[in-house]
Amino acid sequence: MAVTVVGSVAFDSLETPFGRRERILGGAATHFSLSASMFTDVRVVGVVGHDFGTDEFERFHCKGIDTTDLERVPGERSFFWKGRYDTDMQVAETLETQLNVFAGFQPKLSEAARSSAMVFLANIQPDLQRGVREQCSGALITGLDSMNYWIESARESLLETLAVVDVVMLNDAEVRMLTGEANLKTAAAQVRARGPRVLVIKQGSYGACMSTDEGFFLVPGMPLDTVVDPTGAGDAFAGGFFGYLDSHTTDPFDEGCLRRAAVYGSVMASFAIEDFGSERLERLTHAEVVDRCREFQRMTAFDHLAARERVLAT
Amino acid sequence: MAVTVVGSVAFDSLETPFGRRERILGGAATHFSLSASMFTDVRVVGVVGHDFGTDEFERFHCKGIDTTDLERVPGERSFFWKGRYDTDMQVAETLETQLNVFAGFQPKLSEAARSSAMVFLANIQPDLQRGVREQCSGALITGLDSMNYWIESARESLLETLAVVDVVMLNDAEVRMLTGEANLKTAAAQVRARGPRVLVIKQGSYGACMSTDEGFFLVPGMPLDTVVDPTGAGDAFAGGFFGYLDSHTTDPFDEGCLRRAAVYGSVMASFAIEDFGSERLERLTHAEVVDRCREFQRMTAFDHLAARERVLAT
Repeated sequence: MAVTVVGSVAFDSLETPFGRRERILGGAATHFSLSASMFTDVRVVGVVGHDFGTDEFERFHCKGIDTTDLERVPGERSFFWKGRYDTDMQVAETLETQLNVFAGFQPKLSEAARSSAMVFLANIQPDLQRGVREQCSGALITGLDSMNYWIESARESLLETLAVVDVVMLNDAEVRMLTGEANLKTAAAQVRARGPRVLVIKQGSYGACMSTDEGFFLVPGMPLDTVVDPTGAGDAFAGGFFGYLDSHTTDPFDEGCLRRAAVYGSVMASFAIEDFGSERLERLTHAEVVDRCREFQRMTAFDHLAARERVLAT
Repeated sequence: MAVTVVGSVAFDSLETPFGRRERILGGAATHFSLSASMFTDVRVVGVVGHDFGTDEFERFHCKGIDTTDLERVPGERSFFWKGRYDTDMQVAETLETQLNVFAGFQPKLSEAARSSAMVFLANIQPDLQRGVREQCSGALITGLDSMNYWIESARESLLETLAVVDVVMLNDAEVRMLTGEANLKTAAAQVRARGPRVLVIKQGSYGACMSTDEGFFLVPGMPLDTVVDPTGAGDAFAGGFFGYLDSHTTDPFDEGCLRRAAVYGSVMASFAIEDFGSERLERLTHAEVVDRCREFQRMTAFDHLAARERVLAT
């Protein structure tokens, strides 16, 4: 099987309390691909410019990521984003966005990409996301990410797109903005009533929670020794989530599988933020992923209340 | 056994997005006592004024809370706090504080209170906390809460007091402020290096995490149908935590007991915020506590990675 991701492949200039980087490899589809490639085969659909060279392609290829659908437009430059994070590193401030080649992006999927069982629509204009969704009519499970910009400027289109995917990934502020509802439980129910069976609410360093037909699943954030750059954490989560599902199940809507996928997603996000851009994911080993999963298990395990235990004072 | 709590017993005027209340029963020791009384016997040490009448005392007595050490000063008024919460309800804005009888509070513990196995020093001036700690020289386990005000104005005294208690409960902003360290894992290690074996870091609606010799234990916050007033949530957490420990263990430093105590603490906090002041805790039933613990278990359970599972792509 394979996961197909559609989204930005870009250059980022980043400034965090821990330093800065100029024009490093970035983009949602990049972070997703590198994360998912730890679990399964990945195809990336996107567009880059002439400044995206052999070295950049090689960083995908060495992870086995198929770039057949990563179109290169010779006369233009790649998407570029410049951002800064303050001390608490919860929210990025955008300093500069150059759409460049991305301005005219019209995703055209190859036959192989269209027939993927799992398709993730990273954060792009919701009309484009829906167009890709229609090309992948046979997908077993599809997901999308979005952002405050589209919630404000393309709300109706985003709601239409939510209705045709299975998994929606948003942060808590976006869920509240989309629904106009402060209570997260109520807001989650409203988003799911629009169509998606699964809603993953990302909560930055606090972790994430997932809402399905069987209720909520809570994934707390692990305290980490090193937090350098949150860019791409959400995409790394999505990559781990779909990568795990693709490699481990024939029924991706099985609650147990979804829960384990959310744990792997959280673990992959925890690595992503340890260095700038995609640097940590690119040097990540399978042993490190397994170790951190075990650490997550240790940090969340407790003996459940035995039925016979006299819990409370009478 | 019994838990003794020392702290404010007060009247609060509260304003949240869901309404307002004037001069309702409040104070850290009140919320702690009502929460802990679901698990064990409680003694409350504090001071009130002539405005604190038979009705108020009865609300403690009907939960079996011993008020022998709750001194009533006839010529003065009780501590009064007026606060407001914005939409996100994470931080309270203080509108008015009248110390009144609390200004000259010098905790004097009865023999019974002094010989409690468990003592919690709710948020009061750290010199007073240390004075109480010295009176309870035989306590099996002691804990304290504090706040940004004391971190700024009585830092050295607070550090001295940290050194003589076992469990410190602070929120994440307070832990960062106390240590000057943004990374929570590093900050937690620094706090524990000051003396306390256990640090509970409260994270508002996101839950809490506990740091002990055996590492971190993560307790995510449960999404709730009703969130009305966060006042007293931290005290309700502490009450559930110490109440559970007091009723269920002879070794309160057993990691398994500490972890279950943190779960009960979180569950009690989740009730506290469902109504104004102490109203929800006062009408809480044991069956509701058991049900919510089970809900917490359901919301956090996942099949652990089996050793034989082929987790990752090769």
